[in-house]
Amino acid sequence: MSSTSRLRSLNIDNINPHVKEAKYAVRGELAIKSEEYRAQLKHKNPPTPPDSPLPFDTVISANIGNPQQLDQKPITFFRQVLALLENPALLENEEALKSSFNYKQDAIDRARWLLKEIGSVGAYSQSAGAPGIRQSVANFIERRDGFPADKDQIYLSAGASSGVNTLLHVICASPDTGILVPIPQYPLYTATLSILNAKCVPYYLDESHAWGTDLKVIQEAYDKATSEGTDVRAVVIINPGNPTGASLPEEDVEAVLKFAAEKKLVVMADEVYQTNVFVGKFHSFKQVLRKMQKAEPGTYDNVELASLNSVSKGMVGECGHRAGYFELVGFDKEVAAQIYKFISIMLCPPVIGQCLLEVMVNPPKEGEPSFELYNKEYNGVKDGLKKRAQALYEAFKEMEGVEIGEPQGSMYLFPTIHVPEKAVEAAQKADRTPDEFYCLRLLDATGICVVPGSGFGQKPNTLHLRTTFLAPGTDWVGRWTTFHKDFFEQYS
Amino acid sequence: MSSTSRLRSLNIDNINPHVKEAKYAVRGELAIKSEEYRAQLKHKNPPTPPDSPLPFDTVISANIGNPQQLDQKPITFFRQVLALLENPALLENEEALKSSFNYKQDAIDRARWLLKEIGSVGAYSQSAGAPGIRQSVANFIERRDGFPADKDQIYLSAGASSGVNTLLHVICASPDTGILVPIPQYPLYTATLSILNAKCVPYYLDESHAWGTDLKVIQEAYDKATSEGTDVRAVVIINPGNPTGASLPEEDVEAVLKFAAEKKLVVMADEVYQTNVFVGKFHSFKQVLRKMQKAEPGTYDNVELASLNSVSKGMVGECGHRAGYFELVGFDKEVAAQIYKFISIMLCPPVIGQCLLEVMVNPPKEGEPSFELYNKEYNGVKDGLKKRAQALYEAFKEMEGVEIGEPQGSMYLFPTIHVPEKAVEAAQKADRTPDEFYCLRLLDATGICVVPGSGFGQKPNTLHLRTTFLAPGTDWVGRWTTFHKDFFEQYS
Repeated sequence: MSSTSRLRSLNIDNINPHVKEAKYAVRGELAIKSEEYRAQLKHKNPPTPPDSPLPFDTVISANIGNPQQLDQKPITFFRQVLALLENPALLENEEALKSSFNYKQDAIDRARWLLKEIGSVGAYSQSAGAPGIRQSVANFIERRDGFPADKDQIYLSAGASSGVNTLLHVICASPDTGILVPIPQYPLYTATLSILNAKCVPYYLDESHAWGTDLKVIQEAYDKATSEGTDVRAVVIINPGNPTGASLPEEDVEAVLKFAAEKKLVVMADEVYQTNVFVGKFHSFKQVLRKMQKAEPGTYDNVELASLNSVSKGMVGECGHRAGYFELVGFDKEVAAQIYKFISIMLCPPVIGQCLLEVMVNPPKEGEPSFELYNKEYNGVKDGLKKRAQALYEAFKEMEGVEIGEPQGSMYLFPTIHVPEKAVEAAQKADRTPDEFYCLRLLDATGICVVPGSGFGQKPNTLHLRTTFLAPGTDWVGRWTTFHKDFFEQYS
Repeated sequence: MSSTSRLRSLNIDNINPHVKEAKYAVRGELAIKSEEYRAQLKHKNPPTPPDSPLPFDTVISANIGNPQQLDQKPITFFRQVLALLENPALLENEEALKSSFNYKQDAIDRARWLLKEIGSVGAYSQSAGAPGIRQSVANFIERRDGFPADKDQIYLSAGASSGVNTLLHVICASPDTGILVPIPQYPLYTATLSILNAKCVPYYLDESHAWGTDLKVIQEAYDKATSEGTDVRAVVIINPGNPTGASLPEEDVEAVLKFAAEKKLVVMADEVYQTNVFVGKFHSFKQVLRKMQKAEPGTYDNVELASLNSVSKGMVGECGHRAGYFELVGFDKEVAAQIYKFISIMLCPPVIGQCLLEVMVNPPKEGEPSFELYNKEYNGVKDGLKKRAQALYEAFKEMEGVEIGEPQGSMYLFPTIHVPEKAVEAAQKADRTPDEFYCLRLLDATGICVVPGSGFGQKPNTLHLRTTFLAPGTDWVGRWTTFHKDFFEQYS
């Protein structure tokens, strides 16, 4: 269309088609609708039935892992330190901090040390993050894995999402570049690949084996893609799984690394849920790789691994601060320099978030004044999450047409749902997939916002939904159970 | 190269070529070298000559507008509020806040209100930012311009850079998409266009008229590009200018808007230096557009304007917090929905930064308890910046071979430098442009880091450099003057 015949420069048919193709259901139509409901309830006074036009009095945002929106309290030590960094004038009266506000000396000392490292939270840091904070991250990785880590291979980021965005930008060289992505997956991966006009090479996770990683399936996906001319460059693993909650055994991690070594693939290990593990133990890709390198010297020296972590998840749940990091292992130096240049264009990750990452990876130690409270709060969150997961799991087990495995980790349950035939027809009429239809009806009836399985990808002819288990109390679970029963009655 | 013959998945020859092409000199080679010098000085004890292997004892980062790295103090009211948001437990003892820490009631009230709006700074907000904060931004724009603003057209971002990245991602539809970009420019624009594989359509600013915008030049650049098949979609204006410091008169703003209306171009108005104006007055594109729309109803209804602002600049200088916003005017609704989806993939801008933006656009008012101090601090920064600009300007005027106009705005001076013929030859030998050569020698001799004009673009056969005027004191200016004299002596 010529510039004179159209009304404006931009319309839906002439903007970037790759942006248009991108799908991100976690904050899509349902989430937007739930925010409208929330605004409606907020402006209504009194916002309670029977006056309310809505059949519920609260919106439960179970579509996204956002713990502090759902009553999880931040950890005191972390926030005490951050407050001092925002207002260093508070440090001029240590006595008042202690006597009036329960500060302990270690929080004060930490703030002073961080201020020395960063200067001011209002100043840009180095683009990869303040060196002292990267050193703390390296120390944390070293303690976690029992193998050395180098601060110069660590890149702080605005949440793990920004790290994924950086890595995919550098890796994706052409429309033929392919990235192996688990299905179901957190849709950041497919959305970013759409925007970059690169290929998602899907491999299905094995629902019948607790959503495990089946190497045979990865191999088949790889072979098929390469035979079609796709230049497969990397394999994404989300462990513990999102949306599946799966927690991988060490053998699976090792198998993926061996495969990556053989095919020369970058391993992108999304390990943001590394402390959210209920069953078994978290095995970091870095640790397993170092063990393999030690066991067979020379064989795995050139494996390229990027491991991502975040302050948004774990027992910290500080999503709003947008902080995280990735560690590079085995990357070519010139490639790493391009990664640095790429992130420098956006200057630096939020500095107060960098500081939060520092206290997360370097929390009070046993014997230090703030340890007791820290430990109590941390374990309180951990136990609470496990209990909530279990309660929701029990409720799902009772629901007609729902299949679900025991919660293993992360912040999500991802049950299979079978809906009655009449509901499938009603969905078709409404131009919806049946899982979308179910989730939309759930939102309209109960205010509970979850994400249809189609938003993450699922095997053909299967239906799922992802819900967080973060919301407190049992009221919302009761609402859901009632809705589910009504839904099945209506469509039977 | 096949996957079996190469060592790794990624090397400099097979990564994303568009990332490789991107140039961002503001944090490029010189900045990296200056950080190495800084680390060297930090680890040396005592870090003073004559023991030091370096001929200077401090690094002056004049390459980037980073006021709080260069001793600018944050504004007390802002940081008092942010500290309460990070540690809401402080609100439990208002008396102690007031008696021990000089808090006033309005800071406490603001923190309580913001906490109500956001819940927790640790929770994700809506992707465009918390509604209450967007409303404050709309109120600010309304007061600034005298025309209404709508919170639903406002998108908070992680600094203006992230906003530019979003807008260019949506606008650039193919390798034929062209964006008119002023030269010299802040290299975020050209770097992002490289990464998006779209075309920068350069138009030169007029150095002989205080780096003004010459519509004839824009028209010529547009005509040339369209005749070569480029689909020109938008025009970028940086006002006040970066790197030039120019402050546009209202007629120039009007001329650009008329041109954009005629050619149906999106106007991207980078207005992050809107309060950094020494000469004349800032005229926002939004205000001028609304005036034009009022004067000639119907004629300019479809002009698409995106106006960007930031907490990093102005008298606030809170770069490390990564906060900003853009306002859309006249955009198609479906296009705006795609912008929303795009930003939702990265979830939300940092929430504590959103809150800082709120206090920036809604500072204490006359008569409120915190006003007096706020006003004093704000004007102190403003006067300080003006004085520093003037002092540096005077020093440049005395330097041989340097041409410079009076400082008008922003945080930069962008003098022309003429270097001796022998220096040009020495640069050639060192495989450097003469401006790079000069800046590199300046860094090595004095620790002052600035950016060669080639990093921003400059007319052929001209040489410039960009320096901030943020560094305090006169010592560093003296170092520069001495270096400059020596340089000219050496190469004459």
